[in-house]
This record gives sequence, C-alpha cells and structure tokens, in this order.
Amino acid sequence: MTTADLDPHLASRLKRTADGLVPVIVQEATTSAVLMLAWMDDEALHRTLTTGRVTFWSRSREEYWRKGDTSGDRQFVRRAYYDCDGDTLLFVVEQEGRGACHTGEHSCFYRAFGA
Amino acid sequence: MTTADLDPHLASRLKRTADGLVPVIVQEATTSAVLMLAWMDDEALHRTLTTGRVTFWSRSREEYWRKGDTSGDRQFVRRAYYDCDGDTLLFVVEQEGRGACHTGEHSCFYRAFGA
Repeated sequence: MTTADLDPHLASRLKRTADGLVPVIVQEATTSAVLMLAWMDDEALHRTLTTGRVTFWSRSREEYWRKGDTSGDRQFVRRAYYDCDGDTLLFVVEQEGRGACHTGEHSCFYRAFGA
Repeated sequence: MTTADLDPHLASRLKRTADGLVPVIVQEATTSAVLMLAWMDDEALHRTLTTGRVTFWSRSREEYWRKGDTSGDRQFVRRAYYDCDGDTLLFVVEQEGRGACHTGEHSCFYRAFGA
C-alpha cells in the first residue's frame, strides 16, 4: 500500500518503529481484560479501521493476519485509541470464540510472575 | 547489571527486542483502564519486581525511569503477567496522583480514532 490509503491526518500522528510498525494493545469490551499485544503497519491499521475486523502484521510470518480467519476467534472493533506519543494503539474489541490466545486461553496474559 | 540479577528461570522465558527490551502494558487495578505502554530491560524488570515500584527504561532519555519520581504519579505493582510468547508484560497497578500520562490525563489513551 501507499501511506495515502490511511487517513493522512491520522498517519501523520503516528510514530512507527524502524520496521514501520506500531504495537497494538487489544482489550475486551465486555470484561476489560487485556487480551493480547500485536503489531500493525499502516495497511493493517487501514484494513482494521475500514472493515471493523482487527488485522495485524505478523512479524514472524511476515504477512497480514486477520485475527480469527483460521481460529474463528475474530475480533470486532468497538473503540480505538492512540496514545499521547502516537506510538501505541489501543483497540477495545468484541472477542468471538474461545478467546484471543492461540493456546486456547482467553487472554495471552495467563501466566503470572512468581506462579 | 548482569542477567543473573533477574531470576534466571524468568529471564529464560522472555524474548527481547534487539535492544534488549520488552513492551509493558500497564493496567489500573481499580478501574481496569489501560493506562500506558512503556519498555523494560532486565534491570528495570528486576527493580520493579523487587521493589513493587514500576520502573521502565526510557528509550528517549536512555535512562531508568521510576514512574512518579518527578511527577508524583507513582505506580505500585498489584499483579504481573507475561504473555504466551514471553515477549510482552502486563502489570496491573495501583496508580497514584492524577494518573499515568505526562499530559495530565489519567490514561495515555485519551484520543480516539475519528474524534
């Protein structure tokens, strides 16, 4: 994509890593649980905002990853925020299926320090 | 520090960036609000876990940053988690003072997309 696909005003507010990515916190709307952290480039953000389906850039697979396409555990955007520095995003979502984690846990943060 | 200062079992579970950092999501215990995202290296994590005061590595200032030392807006650890991949941390905290954001807002995520 070209950056022009993302709203230019919004695009100008974001600070990306050297790889062109921003970290994205995903929080569940109904429970307020923090579900996961993943990464978006401008195209993933554009797709997410225009379709309402959360779409990441997978750093390990180096491809777009529309959450739930293989697992069924889709995420639908309810609210979306960017932080004071413009270098982190927060998506509040409706989580379908078992949950967000590929392990089957509801949240990826199921292991506590010291446990 | 040497990595030995951090519990070796824990240290072995974490995946860091090329700069030796992990992103840390901070969530407020009382409200479940996502307050901010910042970064820790092993020393910052060690200090946080051993003192109960959230301490980051500031990428812009290149120094340790014990949250609240200048602002008064300290964060005390209530619960701490690492994610399924071991590359992101979640700290649930008690937030003192006005809030987490240097702007005076309670959360750094006070700007919504489209607003």
